[in-house]
Amino acid sequence: MARILTGIQSSGKPHLGNILGAMKPAIDLSNDDKNDSFFFIADLHSLTTIKDPKVRIENTNAVAAAWLAFGFDTAKNTFYRQSRVPEVCELNWYLNCFAPYPMLANAHSFKDKSDRLADVNAGLFVYPVLMACDILLYDANIVPVGKDQRQHLEMTRDIANSFNHQYGDVFVLPDAQINEEVMTIPGIDGQKMSKSYGNTIDIFQTDKALRKNIMKIVSDSTPLEDPKDPANDITFSLFELLADDDQIAEMKSNYLGGNYGYGHAKQALYELIISKYSKERETYNHYIENPALLEEQLLIGEEKARKVAREVLDRVKSVLGFA
Amino acid sequence: MARILTGIQSSGKPHLGNILGAMKPAIDLSNDDKNDSFFFIADLHSLTTIKDPKVRIENTNAVAAAWLAFGFDTAKNTFYRQSRVPEVCELNWYLNCFAPYPMLANAHSFKDKSDRLADVNAGLFVYPVLMACDILLYDANIVPVGKDQRQHLEMTRDIANSFNHQYGDVFVLPDAQINEEVMTIPGIDGQKMSKSYGNTIDIFQTDKALRKNIMKIVSDSTPLEDPKDPANDITFSLFELLADDDQIAEMKSNYLGGNYGYGHAKQALYELIISKYSKERETYNHYIENPALLEEQLLIGEEKARKVAREVLDRVKSVLGFA
Repeated sequence: MARILTGIQSSGKPHLGNILGAMKPAIDLSNDDKNDSFFFIADLHSLTTIKDPKVRIENTNAVAAAWLAFGFDTAKNTFYRQSRVPEVCELNWYLNCFAPYPMLANAHSFKDKSDRLADVNAGLFVYPVLMACDILLYDANIVPVGKDQRQHLEMTRDIANSFNHQYGDVFVLPDAQINEEVMTIPGIDGQKMSKSYGNTIDIFQTDKALRKNIMKIVSDSTPLEDPKDPANDITFSLFELLADDDQIAEMKSNYLGGNYGYGHAKQALYELIISKYSKERETYNHYIENPALLEEQLLIGEEKARKVAREVLDRVKSVLGFA
Repeated sequence: MARILTGIQSSGKPHLGNILGAMKPAIDLSNDDKNDSFFFIADLHSLTTIKDPKVRIENTNAVAAAWLAFGFDTAKNTFYRQSRVPEVCELNWYLNCFAPYPMLANAHSFKDKSDRLADVNAGLFVYPVLMACDILLYDANIVPVGKDQRQHLEMTRDIANSFNHQYGDVFVLPDAQINEEVMTIPGIDGQKMSKSYGNTIDIFQTDKALRKNIMKIVSDSTPLEDPKDPANDITFSLFELLADDDQIAEMKSNYLGGNYGYGHAKQALYELIISKYSKERETYNHYIENPALLEEQLLIGEEKARKVAREVLDRVKSVLGFA
């Protein structure tokens, strides 16, 4: 049984691109009996850039509600907020003292962030150490990461290796599982769907807002009566990702037959989302309206996570002479 | 009532210079009813440079035993190990996100340490933030510091000010109390007594070792029978710091009268230390031989410290949206 650890950015309400590209595959993986999955909402990391408490609480709740709405199993898995396991901050101090300053100063992500951001704080600088703690504190075996996180995983292994070399086998060495080209979901302008491009589809908003969102999908100016090329249309691409084979065949024939406008296609996509995700939309909004229920779900994981965290932290403190 | 906070370096057994120059004045101050003193042994800071667990435990116990031996009152004051209040590590993460990177990179102490030390780790870099947490976590009003720590106190105030500006009056702003030229205790070579000069007198060692230590005090080559100048002799200077007026007058007359050698003076200094500090030496060794008694004393402060720490940390987490 491999322990898989995944940190979830708490940067806002997950959009359709997040859901199809990251959440659904992760939830499928977590349902595998061979895996023992730890998923945490990285709210401590969010403080490096988000200073508004209201935004943080909303983001955290939105992320948690979305994962739960898509059926993430909090009994089988361990689902928790990073900040609720304060042992990670303790480990962070201990491992800061084993993280070479030049290694952090040369990290790609820090260089990139210090070029881009106005607020370059010490949290951004030691972020890779906190990330190492997120992983090492739970004896994680496998950490699925994007290519941009590969260097952070190497730092985690370097810190753990150097520590183990001095004090014996204290830390489990994690392996990165690099996510090769995952499914790219087009946004409403045809670029990759991304919050930073402002081209997302938010499936959790009200019917009316969702419809308005979908009607903004960019299309070409082929007249209503002419045939249209499904291979070169954003609405069709999105429809294809969500529909079943029969629905796709029917839509393709509509496109090729003419007298079927993009507005019709968008309306069909809207209706498909409404029907396909009716349960998820309802569950999501139920959690958002009842934060106590969210809290209840997150407490289950918090207790499991803290138990493991305390054991690992005790190993660390003991070899370092902090009785 | 002012809350005074003092961090005690856990860098080994306190020597006579530490005792006369720092410990005794601090203990006198702590006995004042107007003061509410928090004293902590900075064992987390020690990890930036000391990696050997045995050394850390010995150092921590030696420091605690010495303070207790000199009558530090653990019931009136709050005496604790830094590492036993893990809230300080939590606050450290939060405040890292409010500590400007350039401020830390330009700190004198970091520049100095990164020039001197082979192991330049992230702990050394964020050390001023942990120090800010040591202070702010306890709503300290006054922090007595040496001149070399003045910049760290300014950083603490800067971080607290900037935080309060954004979130309201969360932190108490501490004032530095700069220790102007404190009493300088000469070491056995006449320079300032300091562990780094290897010229200390350890009053807690065995009689035999203490005598050997004192016999090494440097003296000039004036023949036994000649008069000697008390104003220019290290042994006399040390004797003068410890003896009462009658003893000093007698010793001065011995020096000026001739037929009194430096060996006699050193023997007298040795006997003075043995008699003056007999209770302290006994108490110290009793604690070192019974670490459970030390633990008991330190637990009293730990509970008091954590209570304050939790309240302040809750204030911080609440305004930041970490419910």
